[in-house]
Amino acid sequence: LSSENFKLDKRLANDCIPLGYLHWVSIKNELSGEASLLLLMNNAEIPWFVIVPVGVAAIDIDELDDKQQSQLLKEVNALSGFLKTNYSVDKINFASIGNIVKQMHFHLVARTEQDSCWPGVVWGVNAKIKYTRQQVENLTTLLNKEISFFKPN
Amino acid sequence: LSSENFKLDKRLANDCIPLGYLHWVSIKNELSGEASLLLLMNNAEIPWFVIVPVGVAAIDIDELDDKQQSQLLKEVNALSGFLKTNYSVDKINFASIGNIVKQMHFHLVARTEQDSCWPGVVWGVNAKIKYTRQQVENLTTLLNKEISFFKPN
Repeated sequence: LSSENFKLDKRLANDCIPLGYLHWVSIKNELSGEASLLLLMNNAEIPWFVIVPVGVAAIDIDELDDKQQSQLLKEVNALSGFLKTNYSVDKINFASIGNIVKQMHFHLVARTEQDSCWPGVVWGVNAKIKYTRQQVENLTTLLNKEISFFKPN
Repeated sequence: LSSENFKLDKRLANDCIPLGYLHWVSIKNELSGEASLLLLMNNAEIPWFVIVPVGVAAIDIDELDDKQQSQLLKEVNALSGFLKTNYSVDKINFASIGNIVKQMHFHLVARTEQDSCWPGVVWGVNAKIKYTRQQVENLTTLLNKEISFFKPN
């Protein structure tokens, strides 16, 4: 796995909980050596994934090649479906910002009209409620069950 | 063009300037009847495009089909390259938010460390400086020259 020399940005490591890896899948449905790290933003009020492609030198989304962009969308589609199945979701927010954290990462956030940031954006707001260990375990188990190319940490 | 029955959301119409259409291109490089409307956020401080796929019923990015997602990324790639060629860009911000405006739209924003919102996000901040008519004309001319599948209004 190309994650061996991979070092997660300190800010992401501080704000998020690593859940596991999304393994890239070839057309023949074989797992490749490449993967994205799947993080959970440690804000128990708002279901919020952060996808970090491992070993990708790109900074902006347009710098990913066709294959990497396809893979990213496959991940976004699967995780969006997961969020809609398991949470109350009024709107999925998807964003590549990266003004502060330079390591490429993508936000995928399940928003509801009742969440504390609605209708504003979630970025720049500090989380008040953190996840319990049990909640993280339950979420990881569910991801492992529902997303075939997810492997827990 | 499927834009004949298309009605732009009032908030987008109020905040943005329509520049033209990005015409969807088939594998054979033929223009299809489908298009995205290209808007310019009327904030002369920050180069900021808004892409509105015409005639798409989807709300979230995962609801676009494979072809629509590919087309969106083609538009994002071309416009990101355009921004990097013609403006000073430290980071491209790309986002699908849509908590307030329900009509599907994507933000593509050229950020610099000197802009007034840096390193925060641009959403929720009111534009202080508007574009002049001449600036919009110049930008439209440049887009028409540099992006083959862009057609001005």
